[in-house]
Amino acid sequence: MTSPSFPPAVFQSFAEQADPNNVAPRLAALRAAMATAGVDAFLIPRADAHRGESVPAGDARLAYVTGFTGSAGLAIVGPDRAGLFVDSRYTLQAPAQTDTSKITIHEWLKPGYSPDLARYVPKGGTLAYDPWLHTPGEVRNLTSQLADHCTLLPHANLVDAIWSERPAAPVSTIEFLGHNRAGQTAGDKIIAIQASLGTDKADAAVLTLPESICWLLNMRGRDVPNTPFVLGFAILPRSGQPTLYLDPAKITAEVQAALKGVATVASTDTMAADLAALGTAGKAVLIDPATVPQAIATTLTEAGARLIKKPDPVLLPKARKNPAELAGMREAHTLDGVALAKFLAWFDDNAPKGGLTEIGIVTALEAFRREEETCIDASFDTISGAGPNGAIVHYRVTTKTDRTLNPGEIMLLDSGAQYLSGTTDITRTMSTGSSTPEQRDRFTRVLKGMIAISMARFPQGTSGAQLDTLARQYLWQDGVTYNHGTGHGVGAYLGVHEGPIGISARYTIPLEAGNVLSNEPGYYKAGEYGIRIENLIIVADSVRFPGYLDFETLTLAPIDKRLIDPAMLTPAERDWLNAYHQRVFDEIGPKVDGSVRDWLKAATAAL
Amino acid sequence: MTSPSFPPAVFQSFAEQADPNNVAPRLAALRAAMATAGVDAFLIPRADAHRGESVPAGDARLAYVTGFTGSAGLAIVGPDRAGLFVDSRYTLQAPAQTDTSKITIHEWLKPGYSPDLARYVPKGGTLAYDPWLHTPGEVRNLTSQLADHCTLLPHANLVDAIWSERPAAPVSTIEFLGHNRAGQTAGDKIIAIQASLGTDKADAAVLTLPESICWLLNMRGRDVPNTPFVLGFAILPRSGQPTLYLDPAKITAEVQAALKGVATVASTDTMAADLAALGTAGKAVLIDPATVPQAIATTLTEAGARLIKKPDPVLLPKARKNPAELAGMREAHTLDGVALAKFLAWFDDNAPKGGLTEIGIVTALEAFRREEETCIDASFDTISGAGPNGAIVHYRVTTKTDRTLNPGEIMLLDSGAQYLSGTTDITRTMSTGSSTPEQRDRFTRVLKGMIAISMARFPQGTSGAQLDTLARQYLWQDGVTYNHGTGHGVGAYLGVHEGPIGISARYTIPLEAGNVLSNEPGYYKAGEYGIRIENLIIVADSVRFPGYLDFETLTLAPIDKRLIDPAMLTPAERDWLNAYHQRVFDEIGPKVDGSVRDWLKAATAAL
Repeated sequence: MTSPSFPPAVFQSFAEQADPNNVAPRLAALRAAMATAGVDAFLIPRADAHRGESVPAGDARLAYVTGFTGSAGLAIVGPDRAGLFVDSRYTLQAPAQTDTSKITIHEWLKPGYSPDLARYVPKGGTLAYDPWLHTPGEVRNLTSQLADHCTLLPHANLVDAIWSERPAAPVSTIEFLGHNRAGQTAGDKIIAIQASLGTDKADAAVLTLPESICWLLNMRGRDVPNTPFVLGFAILPRSGQPTLYLDPAKITAEVQAALKGVATVASTDTMAADLAALGTAGKAVLIDPATVPQAIATTLTEAGARLIKKPDPVLLPKARKNPAELAGMREAHTLDGVALAKFLAWFDDNAPKGGLTEIGIVTALEAFRREEETCIDASFDTISGAGPNGAIVHYRVTTKTDRTLNPGEIMLLDSGAQYLSGTTDITRTMSTGSSTPEQRDRFTRVLKGMIAISMARFPQGTSGAQLDTLARQYLWQDGVTYNHGTGHGVGAYLGVHEGPIGISARYTIPLEAGNVLSNEPGYYKAGEYGIRIENLIIVADSVRFPGYLDFETLTLAPIDKRLIDPAMLTPAERDWLNAYHQRVFDEIGPKVDGSVRDWLKAATAAL
Repeated sequence: MTSPSFPPAVFQSFAEQADPNNVAPRLAALRAAMATAGVDAFLIPRADAHRGESVPAGDARLAYVTGFTGSAGLAIVGPDRAGLFVDSRYTLQAPAQTDTSKITIHEWLKPGYSPDLARYVPKGGTLAYDPWLHTPGEVRNLTSQLADHCTLLPHANLVDAIWSERPAAPVSTIEFLGHNRAGQTAGDKIIAIQASLGTDKADAAVLTLPESICWLLNMRGRDVPNTPFVLGFAILPRSGQPTLYLDPAKITAEVQAALKGVATVASTDTMAADLAALGTAGKAVLIDPATVPQAIATTLTEAGARLIKKPDPVLLPKARKNPAELAGMREAHTLDGVALAKFLAWFDDNAPKGGLTEIGIVTALEAFRREEETCIDASFDTISGAGPNGAIVHYRVTTKTDRTLNPGEIMLLDSGAQYLSGTTDITRTMSTGSSTPEQRDRFTRVLKGMIAISMARFPQGTSGAQLDTLARQYLWQDGVTYNHGTGHGVGAYLGVHEGPIGISARYTIPLEAGNVLSNEPGYYKAGEYGIRIENLIIVADSVRFPGYLDFETLTLAPIDKRLIDPAMLTPAERDWLNAYHQRVFDEIGPKVDGSVRDWLKAATAAL
């Protein structure tokens, strides 16, 4: 097989985005703005008002001021000191990205809680925050921690005030899904959610999560990377049409026409008045305390609304994918399986020769995916970990960290794509030649756990928390584990990480038919190698056993047999693996040619 | 082997205690007392002030009025109607025991909650309750459910007022455990709990659970059946000696002497004044909201105390058995293993001949146990289920229900004993001759689950909720399960059911080394047969893997190999079973003779 040269990646940037030199002048400007505003300290969270995993460039305030680009964190800037609070994932990345002479890094065990917060605010001073970027619970929590020390104060965002070339809010084209893709009209979805508002005795719900609003109205956009979101807000009354609040630039005639009879479209500027009107009318308004901006809750309560604090009513219905959504997900996984087969064949041809780099591998995979024109984005930044970098669970390669993969090293590749038909997320761990007995032992234990989830059957009412141990049991037997969940929910052409279901001790909500989850146990040996095997799976009603659920596997790509110790598999596990590989060949084989097909035939041959 | 004749059982009564004919006159007397007291309705819970599984005869108010003897339930007696609310375990037993022409039975899905409660109280009326028999949370919950309907009112107990021959409060001899059995002095235990009160910023704790008080003061008694409790209360200050409140009749010179320098002993009559004194001094007092009587909470708050609502601080330390307690538990299980070997040999000799009855089986087992003089009680009423009765999970045989075991039927026997050295709980399911392939399939799936728990290894921090699925997975694969937890905590010469740890989805507290649990998956086919296999297990630090825990099995009795389908066991499972049986023979074999030893040899031979 020849090694093609690939066009540069467009879905993923490998640039080291942080420049610590910016920290000092930006902190100085912020402190000047704080002085003008008469506040002693200012909070800069990573979140935007929509609590998304990706935020638009103009909402990356934490990165703008501190340089830190992780997906979670909180800076607190005081008159002469500033602190950055991150969780354990980011204790290495944060100091590398910021100016540690200006900003002190703190690790917090429980996000939102630290006795060190008070160090950055003068005793008796004022700590200002943007009420659009914090939930009422977060504000209450900070207020109670700092009760004896200082006063919290909602304020217009002071970072925005000093950000001279702040990127404009995103305005991408809005796409509406046809019935063949959405499977249910927006009108029918609205009626169902309105019925649940009746049960909750709510007169209206405020929706602030783009995944909920996009799903409800069968629309998608490109406002942020990786996830086809339209950023906006919505108010859904118990009866009548919802109002969708958008940046006026997005309110085109096409959008108006597409939503005619379904939703009223209004400028985001008018939302505050509509919230206040709900309050004035004494309405009971459902908000999700986990995600609603405090600004919305405050506007409602100050106007007299009664708040009903319940989870966003769209989350559970959205997690139960309907047959059209599942058909799309299956189609996306077939397309992704073709790209993976091409990529893995290329990788097997080239990795043993040496010279592949982590960035080169991402670029190649993206190029194979982009051969399919309905692949519009990566669903997240690829985790491309060569050798010891595979042991860094949240590794993201940059030009600075890019590592050459040496023959004999293990390669961990966790990637996903957004196809118009659906969202994918797959991890494969590949041998590049030789492997050690320990590596094969670990790989086989991870695989046995992955198969245990794949083969699980369980009664209705069972949660992911109850299944998690099935994936870990074989690693636990040898005194090791992995410090991440076994699985997360996945959206249908939406977010690759989607609540409220998942597989780990913290996901106690029952799984339901139509849920899509990842199944991704792993093992990480710091400084040496990382192993993870990830398929997406659908929760399905058991055909043979009424009242029971089991899993259908979505992902179609070979699992590297060279890393398996066959003696460690039970007959049932070997049967599962062989049947899975046979299915991969049956479904992907006809869609690839020549050497890729030959490679696939060998890679999926029975063990 | 000859079939001995056994002395009558003394630990367990088989009398049908309920006489429905008493219901009408007792309700009439209660209503007269209600009229005199000027209240419209009265609540009669099953609980006493100590929330125990067994209550003294004089606290069996629910049984006295309604005839119902189940372990949970609530009656509400109104001016002309009365209702009895029970959970699903008791929907058959309750109507059989009460006079259904006078009392309506209701099943509640969530104990404490029913829209039918209001039916028994006139609109605008008063519903009285004894504040010693309800927690503040229970009262708050009832108050909020009935807020629009009636007023709740604490009142002296009206059942006591009409109960002419009410048994006196129990006064049993108090026994103090030597250091070889307790493993830690009461003084050292008190210091440790006082340190935890410091962490909780509590000036004192009120203890109301006899298991906590008995453990803390290394004492035991015989105030209730099945559990060696001394009933009493205690106040533990953050520094200084606790005060133990007892019925004055229990305060002997021996008790005073044994507790000298450890605890002050006072009459229960003086507790209210001491609680009030804590309040007057403005103390912060820890109470466990799950179990404290409202009367205690009210006395504290009315006197000005600040309540700290946290779990009883003794529960977790008590659940971590120390080496002396574990040694005692091992000794008790060896003694119990001897009794079980004798019993099972006798059973195997006689059951195939026919004619054994459920009561006869309990009597025989008790007689074999009582051959050991340190066996002082059953740890609960034996569940002796022949054939279809084995499918009734909470079955308790009476003279009315006693069933003859026919050859070919399966026998389920769940029993336990209190030895002075420790507490046992074991279930074995026995063949009496032939069995069906379905029965062997089900038995083997139950066994595989029991072995999966026995062989489990898991990191520190893992809860029983995370292990439960290991026990169910093989049944789930065939679309069946069992509607009870996989395991409960067990006390060391204390309650056979002991919180706060266990193995089921609701036990989310991490397991710790020294915990003792049951491991008892089952399968029940209504109207046909029941299967349960139960061993007790100790949580132990893994020898090979620091930071990991695994289980040591306490119970020593053969598992009926005739009900196993060996082809369904993995090599690892067969190895576990053979090693377990070898251990049973090695430890019990030398303690039995002749035909029992021969039987044991065969019953524990490798599969």
